[in-house]
Amino acid sequence: MVSAELLRRIADAAAGETLPRFRSAGAVTNKDAGGFDPVTEADKEAERAIRAVIRAEFPDDGILGEEHGVENADASRVWVIDPIDGTRAFISGVPVWGTLVGLLDKGRAVAGLMSQPFTGELYFATEDGAFYEGPGGPRALTTRPTRSLADATLFTTTPALFRGASRDLYDRLEASVRLARYGTDCYAFAMVAAGHADLAVEAGLQSYDIAGLIPLIEKAGGVVTTWSGGRAEGGGDVIAAANSDLHAAALAVIGS
Amino acid sequence: MVSAELLRRIADAAAGETLPRFRSAGAVTNKDAGGFDPVTEADKEAERAIRAVIRAEFPDDGILGEEHGVENADASRVWVIDPIDGTRAFISGVPVWGTLVGLLDKGRAVAGLMSQPFTGELYFATEDGAFYEGPGGPRALTTRPTRSLADATLFTTTPALFRGASRDLYDRLEASVRLARYGTDCYAFAMVAAGHADLAVEAGLQSYDIAGLIPLIEKAGGVVTTWSGGRAEGGGDVIAAANSDLHAAALAVIGS
Repeated sequence: MVSAELLRRIADAAAGETLPRFRSAGAVTNKDAGGFDPVTEADKEAERAIRAVIRAEFPDDGILGEEHGVENADASRVWVIDPIDGTRAFISGVPVWGTLVGLLDKGRAVAGLMSQPFTGELYFATEDGAFYEGPGGPRALTTRPTRSLADATLFTTTPALFRGASRDLYDRLEASVRLARYGTDCYAFAMVAAGHADLAVEAGLQSYDIAGLIPLIEKAGGVVTTWSGGRAEGGGDVIAAANSDLHAAALAVIGS
Repeated sequence: MVSAELLRRIADAAAGETLPRFRSAGAVTNKDAGGFDPVTEADKEAERAIRAVIRAEFPDDGILGEEHGVENADASRVWVIDPIDGTRAFISGVPVWGTLVGLLDKGRAVAGLMSQPFTGELYFATEDGAFYEGPGGPRALTTRPTRSLADATLFTTTPALFRGASRDLYDRLEASVRLARYGTDCYAFAMVAAGHADLAVEAGLQSYDIAGLIPLIEKAGGVVTTWSGGRAEGGGDVIAAANSDLHAAALAVIGS
């Protein structure tokens, strides 16, 4: 259906556009003149390159991307692209951004990838499972057995993402865990899938922020849902946990 | 005095101990049974390896390390070692930790390095200047010309580091800048030296947390001091800025 080889080709096509522009001056533009919503040329060109690979392979599939909108919106298979998740990490030189590509089949995420080309890491999932390729050598991804919040490591991009009641819930969750870390965007979800961390929590995600990551988490043994326990393909407030016990414990704190 | 070749050898010796243990299960121990202060076997073995390289080259120099205490405390030249700065990043799989080694000459930091072996990055400074080696190829380090807080990118490990009045001052500084990012430890200082970010702010540092980074910042054109504007070799509350104008602007907010 979707091969590892195709996912590698997609990651390589994106890397060809992102990597030469990472840490180079002058690539930043403001998408929103009112605020600070940086989008780089790298973002736009990487999505273009990814679309070209997908279109050549599966011309009838739909494509939804952050930068270039929707193609074949009625297709039952839709590829969802975030060429650079973590643009703020990208523009400040820190290699915890990633290229995200997910495949939805009738709305359900069934394959996906997170690629970090500066470190040379590729995390991907096909129907065969979830896998890592990069420094240290290739291996299958497996989440951790951590069952209790008191033993868990939690990642979020920044607590400032959570507003009002969500902030109170997030603060309660953070106070329950062993270690909380900030500043990771998509990288956090890859760390949960790979068994280096236990929980990733974010608010206000778009579909393209999470679609590529859902198969990684699920095929590695983890659980990813909205804070109300529903499927996360549509984005929103999202939590990923290393296993179903830990997911239940976290949802008991932040669930609505 | 201190060659790039020696600094590379020190970084390689440390990497030989840290890298095989990064992302491997079971290497974590608790230094402080009461809290969560993780120190890995990697930490201890890397410092041992670094000391061996330094001792072989400069047997009369002093050595001060986080893990194994002081040797030749009366020497006018003292090497200051943090084998893994950012142990929390290390144990959660995120490659923004680093090995820090600085050389103090009569109390003044004159050479140093920050090595991130997973990404293959080495940032170092000798009397010849400050340099980067790694992905993208070698180059001299130069800080950015950003003069105003409103245009600046600020890094800190976490706002939770700042307590009481310091937290209020930090919050005022964060509110003044364009973009704030968390979760970076020593990596933030390397990003300032390399011209990818403008400010790095931390509280309660030890000498070994900062000694290796001071020469990187200074030789790249930046300024690093305590919050009261004094030399930072002794640690404490520390701020690094891309240039003296930006340093003055930041100190006007947080200075005491």
